[in-house]
Parts: sequence; structure tokens; C-alpha cells
Amino acid sequence: MKTKAAILNGPDQLPIIGELDLKLESNKVMVKVMASALNHRDVWIKKGMYGGIIYPIILGSDGIVEYKGGLFLINPGLNWGNDEAFHGSNFEILGLPSHGCFAEYVQIEEKYLHPKPDHLSLTEAAAIPLAGLTAFRALFAKAQLKKSDKVFISGIGGGVALFAMQFAIANGNEVYVSSSSTEKIEKAIALGAKGGFNYKDEDMDKQVLKSVGPMDVVIDSAGGKGFSKLVNISNKGGRISIYGGTVGKMELIPQKLFWNHVSIYGTTMGSDQDFKEMIKFINFHKIKPIVDEVFPIQEIGAALLKMENGQQFGKLVLSNSF
Amino acid sequence: MKTKAAILNGPDQLPIIGELDLKLESNKVMVKVMASALNHRDVWIKKGMYGGIIYPIILGSDGIVEYKGGLFLINPGLNWGNDEAFHGSNFEILGLPSHGCFAEYVQIEEKYLHPKPDHLSLTEAAAIPLAGLTAFRALFAKAQLKKSDKVFISGIGGGVALFAMQFAIANGNEVYVSSSSTEKIEKAIALGAKGGFNYKDEDMDKQVLKSVGPMDVVIDSAGGKGFSKLVNISNKGGRISIYGGTVGKMELIPQKLFWNHVSIYGTTMGSDQDFKEMIKFINFHKIKPIVDEVFPIQEIGAALLKMENGQQFGKLVLSNSF
Repeated sequence: MKTKAAILNGPDQLPIIGELDLKLESNKVMVKVMASALNHRDVWIKKGMYGGIIYPIILGSDGIVEYKGGLFLINPGLNWGNDEAFHGSNFEILGLPSHGCFAEYVQIEEKYLHPKPDHLSLTEAAAIPLAGLTAFRALFAKAQLKKSDKVFISGIGGGVALFAMQFAIANGNEVYVSSSSTEKIEKAIALGAKGGFNYKDEDMDKQVLKSVGPMDVVIDSAGGKGFSKLVNISNKGGRISIYGGTVGKMELIPQKLFWNHVSIYGTTMGSDQDFKEMIKFINFHKIKPIVDEVFPIQEIGAALLKMENGQQFGKLVLSNSF
Repeated sequence: MKTKAAILNGPDQLPIIGELDLKLESNKVMVKVMASALNHRDVWIKKGMYGGIIYPIILGSDGIVEYKGGLFLINPGLNWGNDEAFHGSNFEILGLPSHGCFAEYVQIEEKYLHPKPDHLSLTEAAAIPLAGLTAFRALFAKAQLKKSDKVFISGIGGGVALFAMQFAIANGNEVYVSSSSTEKIEKAIALGAKGGFNYKDEDMDKQVLKSVGPMDVVIDSAGGKGFSKLVNISNKGGRISIYGGTVGKMELIPQKLFWNHVSIYGTTMGSDQDFKEMIKFINFHKIKPIVDEVFPIQEIGAALLKMENGQQFGKLVLSNSF
């Protein structure tokens, strides 16, 4: 079956709108995409910096779709496997190697379709899947967030960071953020964060400890030398979840870890169970994802470049109008 | 009450045998030390590389003591606090700031006295407390050791590393070790380890993965650049407990952590609960601590220097003969 789509044909190109023939696999159903959203993964793949890229490929892990007259969110974490603690060797993320949601149609196993939360618009719902899932697992399954925990979220503005902030605030936690942008910090505070810090400040860790005290839970996706500051601001028994490494190699002083009983949890995406619980949590707390901008899918190139430049505060959503 | 003791009078000195007046605190009892054991902590303090050193001080965290006609092991982790996850702010380790076990008498709260395991000699029992407790918590409370886990223990020969090895073997796990000494690796294999690797080999991680496959649980006390190899050999969902940092600053590639769902647990000593369970485990499995050498307490200087040089395989025990 032919689908219109934004097709990536090679490294360091932008996807171009065209048509691709999808061969429906027997265990999957073909669903119509109403809206989709970008993730950093799409930027890494566009730049050729990702394992196992094949061309042509339709990217897009996040999608809100129509199927049998209903509206559904896709869980893009495919074939997680049997162990809640980690994904098995058949794990895939929708949108490489299998064609993703930047298209008119996408094929998916029925079990990955979850009813759209009623309180959300199509473009708000499209913002949820990958980032919401990652944030939810990082906070709850990994860092075992308790209501009394103080939470610190680095690099606020990205999709996962914002979901982590919203989830923790909805959970009743006191949340602090970091950014190099005063504007982003102000936006986070307007959304309920108690305060923000500039991660470019050499003494950010001292500022945090002095002004608001140590953090019980930290959520990070940067790594790098700055990671040691996140260990420094951790309380005794502190738990740090890391789901990305945009800045690269981390440096750590072991004494800071062991003397303070600090744990670091590497985490990627989440299990089917995490996805279900995340949707339940969003419905219960009526959480509205932060959408930075909605682009028509024809402007996917501009959306990818905006994400690459890190200018966004919230998710970049693509609305279908094929 | 006066006690004979090995007294440390200043930095970079060796303790000298003398007499010190202990003022019995109202909540404590005075018990007679039969044997004691050294820990790296004693070496750090001797070298002046430890916080809050006071002089004169009687070191020694490990002791087997006589009290009311019975023989007891001391749990040297004092005032752990109310949270199993970490020690509170009143936590102390016996042997600084309060006087420790390198003496004829030591004072201690009764609740820290635990009956000596019947199957052990005095000098074997003296080897247990600090190192056994640290190893037990690192393996069980922290890394949540399961019987099916493959276990890797770095720097075999030290007290904690050997207890971790013995505990995991007794638990039914397949255990591998590392050392820079072929002799130490051979000794570990003789004690039940399945194999060993030289951590000075640049490609140790590749050797491990190729010959025996990835590890589910890793126990480390070195940190340093080599720590990244311990992450490299970790299985998906791997758990690394680190209780020391002899080599200093660690470097980590964040992608290796998050893509493989690897967790790192900083851990120090253990709670009262951990100590009780550790003694129960030792009794149940009839574990015999590895004692490298027993010195008369008068030769404490030689024992400290042996530990400082890292020559030992097992605990260095001091036998009292005042």
C-alpha cells in the first residue's frame, strides 16, 4: 500500500515529501496518522549519527492515529521483551528500522495502540509517546520518586525534561530546573517549577545547595563534565536517572557516590507497562504536554533544524495535511 | 578506665603501644578485645587522608570481644539512622572519632554486639565486620543479587572484594575476578571463582565479553579510568556497586549506561539490618573469612605497611596479647 510521507534518502539531507510503498506485515494493521512529533533521535538519524540506518526511511516515533473510527496513541517502544528491568535484543523504536509516523499511514501491531486521552487535542496528544514514556520510567520505575523528594531536572526545554517536570509537579514534588537560558527557566517557573539555575555557572552546585538544599532525585540527559555537579547536589540516598548523553563523557568522583549512597540509573524509553501507567497518570492528572510549535508536515525540515539548534521549549509537532 | 592500646599520635606515624584512659559513657559497656582486624580506612587515617582526625586515637573498626562470658562481634557502623537507604548525619564508624579495637578494651553500646559464629576461630571472626558488612550490602541490598547473575569482582585480594566473592559463590553465582597479580587470580580460582582477568590489560573488557560474556553484577572499589571497562562488560540491566575510589576520578560514556539500562550504586558500610543478615548468611553457609596473616598487636606497624603496599590476599588480623 502506498503512503505519502516525509522520506529521508541519505545522511545530512532533509526528508522530502514523496510516496513509498509499504508492504503490510501479517501481524500489523495499517493506521492513518493524524499528527506526529519530533524527537532528538530523528535529528541524530538525519545527521547519520545513529546505528543501523537504512535508506529510504520514514522517521517519526510519535504518532496519534485513527483506527476503526477511534483515536490512538502509539507506544513506539516495540518488542521490549520479558524483563521489566531492560529491553531485550529484539527491541526497536518505531521510525527505524521500521517506517515511522512522518507519513499518511503507518503500520503497527494493534497491541501498541492506546486510546487518546480525552482532555487533549490531536497535536497535544502527538507530543506524548517517546518523551513521556522516557520521563515516566526515569522518574518512577528507576528513581522511585516519592512525594517528599526534591527533584532537579537539567536542561529544561527538551521534551523529556519537560514531561519529567510536569509529572513530578503533578505528583506533588518540589521541582527545580537548569538551563543556560533565563527565558526557559522563567517559563519553567511559570509552569510550576520552584526555581532554576544556569548550568553554565561554574558554581551552580554551590548555588543549589546554598539556596534550596540537596536534591533527592535528578533527571539528566547531558552527561559531560557538568554531571559531577549533579552528583554534588545529590542528597544522601540521592537517585540520578540519565537517559541521554548530549555532552558526552562524564566525570565522577567515586567518593561522592559511595559516601552519599548515590545511585545512577541509565534508562532508555520504557516497557509496555511503563507506557500504560504513564497514560493513566496523564489522564488522572489531566496533564497537558508543552507544545512549542506545530508545523505542517511539509515543513518538517524547518522543524528538524529548530530542534537541532535547541531553540525549542516543548515538543515540535507535525500536523498531517496530505 | 585505663586500657593498653596501639595509639596513633599524629599523621604519618605508626601507632605505638601505650596506655590511654577511656571514660566510660553511660550508654556503653566496656568489653575486652580478643582480636581485631585492619581496614583500608586505618591506612587512610594513618596517612592523615581522612576527615576529622583527632589525636591521640585508637584505631580499629573490627573486633571480636568478650562480654559477660560470651564472645561477640562488633558492628562498627554506629548510629546508622532511620532510613535503610542511607546513613544519617550522626553515623560514625568505630575507631574514629570514638576509640576503636586496637586495644585491650573498647567501649560500645550493647546493641552493636552480635554472637560470634560458632564455626569460626577468634582470628577468623575478627576479619568479618567492616568488610563483610560492606560486601553484603553492595551485593544484596544494592545490586539485588539473583542466583542467575554472573558476578565480576574487581581488585581481588582486598577484604571487601574477597567477602563479596565468597558471598556470591555461596549464593550459587558464577563469579569472575580481576587483579594485576596472576598469583591472586589463581588463589581466587582455588577458592571457587570461575576465572580471572588482568585489569592492566587495555582490552580486559573485550577479553571478558569474548571469553565469558557480559556480567550482571559488578563490585568495584577502584573507580578511575578503568571503571568504564566495568560498564563495558555489564549486561543489559547490569548493576554495579562501588564502595571505594582508590584510583580516583571515574570516566563514563553515558550512552553505555542508558542504552544498556546499567545502574551504578554508591555504597558505604551497611545498616544494622544488613549486619544481622550478613551474620545469618555467614552462619548458614559456614563461610570462613580469608585471613592473609595474623600479627600480634605489637606488630601493628608491619601490618599497616603490608596493607598500604597492597600485598595481602585476605584480611590482616591482630591478635591481642597484652
